[in-house]
Amino acid sequence: MKSRPLKVLGISGSLRKDSFNTAALHTAAEIAADLTEIRVNFTFADLSQIPLYDQDLRDKLIPDAVAALSQQILDADAILFATPEYNYSVSGVLKNAIDWLSRLDPQPFADKPVAVMSASMSAFGGARAQYDLRRILIYLDVHFVNKPEVMIAFAHKKFDDDGKLADTDTRKFIGDLITALDRWSRRLNR
Amino acid sequence: MKSRPLKVLGISGSLRKDSFNTAALHTAAEIAADLTEIRVNFTFADLSQIPLYDQDLRDKLIPDAVAALSQQILDADAILFATPEYNYSVSGVLKNAIDWLSRLDPQPFADKPVAVMSASMSAFGGARAQYDLRRILIYLDVHFVNKPEVMIAFAHKKFDDDGKLADTDTRKFIGDLITALDRWSRRLNR
Amino acid sequence: MKSRPLKVLGISGSLRKDSFNTAALHTAAEIAADLTEIRVNFTFADLSQIPLYDQDLRDKLIPDAVAALSQQILDADAILFATPEYNYSVSGVLKNAIDWLSRLDPQPFADKPVAVMSASMSAFGGARAQYDLRRILIYLDVHFVNKPEVMIAFAHKKFDDDGKLADTDTRKFIGDLITALDRWSRRLNR
Amino acid sequence: MKSRPLKVLGISGSLRKDSFNTAALHTAAEIAADLTEIRVNFTFADLSQIPLYDQDLRDKLIPDAVAALSQQILDADAILFATPEYNYSVSGVLKNAIDWLSRLDPQPFADKPVAVMSASMSAFGGARAQYDLRRILIYLDVHFVNKPEVMIAFAHKKFDDDGKLADTDTRKFIGDLITALDRWSRRLNR
Repeated sequence: MKSRPLKVLGISGSLRKDSFNTAALHTAAEIAADLTEIRVNFTFADLSQIPLYDQDLRDKLIPDAVAALSQQILDADAILFATPEYNYSVSGVLKNAIDWLSRLDPQPFADKPVAVMSASMSAFGGARAQYDLRRILIYLDVHFVNKPEVMIAFAHKKFDDDGKLADTDTRKFIGDLITALDRWSRRLNR
Repeated sequence: MKSRPLKVLGISGSLRKDSFNTAALHTAAEIAADLTEIRVNFTFADLSQIPLYDQDLRDKLIPDAVAALSQQILDADAILFATPEYNYSVSGVLKNAIDWLSRLDPQPFADKPVAVMSASMSAFGGARAQYDLRRILIYLDVHFVNKPEVMIAFAHKKFDDDGKLADTDTRKFIGDLITALDRWSRRLNR
Repeated sequence: MKSRPLKVLGISGSLRKDSFNTAALHTAAEIAADLTEIRVNFTFADLSQIPLYDQDLRDKLIPDAVAALSQQILDADAILFATPEYNYSVSGVLKNAIDWLSRLDPQPFADKPVAVMSASMSAFGGARAQYDLRRILIYLDVHFVNKPEVMIAFAHKKFDDDGKLADTDTRKFIGDLITALDRWSRRLNR
Repeated sequence: MKSRPLKVLGISGSLRKDSFNTAALHTAAEIAADLTEIRVNFTFADLSQIPLYDQDLRDKLIPDAVAALSQQILDADAILFATPEYNYSVSGVLKNAIDWLSRLDPQPFADKPVAVMSASMSAFGGARAQYDLRRILIYLDVHFVNKPEVMIAFAHKKFDDDGKLADTDTRKFIGDLITALDRWSRRLNR
């Protein structure tokens, strides 16, 4: 069952250097490394160099940053998103990257197992963004893990200045999410 | 009642030169100029130079393109959005611009009357994007026109190669939407 | 400005006798009575006798409970909803009542100022239901108050066994919401 | 692979006798019977006797109609919903049934493969209801088929007076949806 490690690509929707969402992805990798019942390897995406989507540009060329991201997704067995919630939805940064990727051939998200978490300073922990992301990716044919739904509320109180997550409950939830992603991916025969 | 013209800012969520949504905004201005019962002046926004939102960048400076857009919104009495629907939501380009604007002081959308239309090549005409936009702008405290809901389906069959809209029914709907925006704005004492 | 009291109809989406949402509406009436800067009178709807919507039934008659609710809405200057969140949306009970009302002539919600709050035992306080309600009522042409968004999280810790709300912050938010509804209604010249 | 037939329960969100959605489910069963590459047996749910959800009632007893529906779901390998779109969301009738089912132990939807279609007289074919249904069922842990998304627009022009669907394209889409549900169910080892 653990014949080979599951390759998970972490995609953060925030560009801020000390982003709680980016920190949550690195925490997930750290937690996964400690879980003995699963074998998961993490790599991380970088959305900072993706230009604004413009179909005229798309018709001329595929920007290097877009091509590289697409290849990372194709190489991955599964995707873990960490998205901030800006204005009650996913960040424009993340949506813009998805808009680019949706216009590629092959469309890299097709048939991928996907999990999502979110972190925010509010009491909602980014919940509103997660439901939009689920809808945004229907046509791209991803398969979402349903549970647990990891929304890290009051993130500024849970991560320290170095981006380390001390909160035990949240670490447990993140571990459960990665475990669920691993099982879901293997169930789908990825 | 028509004491002075209503200043409407048109914001298109597409960067494509021959965008149906951008064309729809220009058509709206053209139609408005012909309507004798309202007085509306149009200006247009340009989202092409807005960088990807990054809070670290925001903390250092406000990019010129963001500041200019904010000023256009502050100067306007009302906003007319034309948004494409990419992946069942608003374009990342539009969402990214809103994410920037939401972090300014003053927040330029506050208390603005707003209308939205959308154009797409599909049978839905961008409907799914419109409902997301309505939610995205709640916290920014805009006041949306409810009706008519203008979704221009099969846009490639309605606009010609020069971006001219021949379809009579659609021109009627757009005229009704601008008229509704004018009345709504005046009712709110803008 | 306070020439006559604003008549507000409170509609709870829960049928449970000790419903937190129904209690929140009664608390709102109680708070409103104490606010000296506004004059608001409350009446309350009862959804318990509304049958399941069936167009065949609708074509034959309008059930008494539906007709009575419609008249209450028509008589009101403004509506205050309190909705539970069941399965990430409004209750079927509330949606079913709206489905009936939407098929009446006159459609009673048309042009009404509306505010919404929600209470739940979860950390989200029913937020997901509120955004659906806003979309559900677009076509019915209501005008929603944007702020404050009152989501009463951990409601079981805030209401006592008699449905009294002790929590000072929540009482303040509810008072702010009624005040906003009063101002919004008067601004719209209701 | 076709070792035994897949047991599919059809759930219509409309109570109208000549409902397009109910007709679409019966059409699906008819189409499935003709498809040689899959083996699918259909049964159908009846929501007409489900009372309005009231937790006080739930605490006393489980109504017979709710218990019977729950057993049908438990007995099924997969679920096919056909939902009307009322006021831009699922019908209150369908939401109310789901609210009841979500409070049962065992919760019958858990881990079920699910597909959804919708029919309406509008150009959207009920699309807005489908996305809400997908969100409503996340917590109940169903696994949705992504594609095809079957939205039967202008349903009154596609079904005849006896509820027969003549439209060839729509019949093809429905056949594709059932085939996708069959494959998805078997992939998930149901």
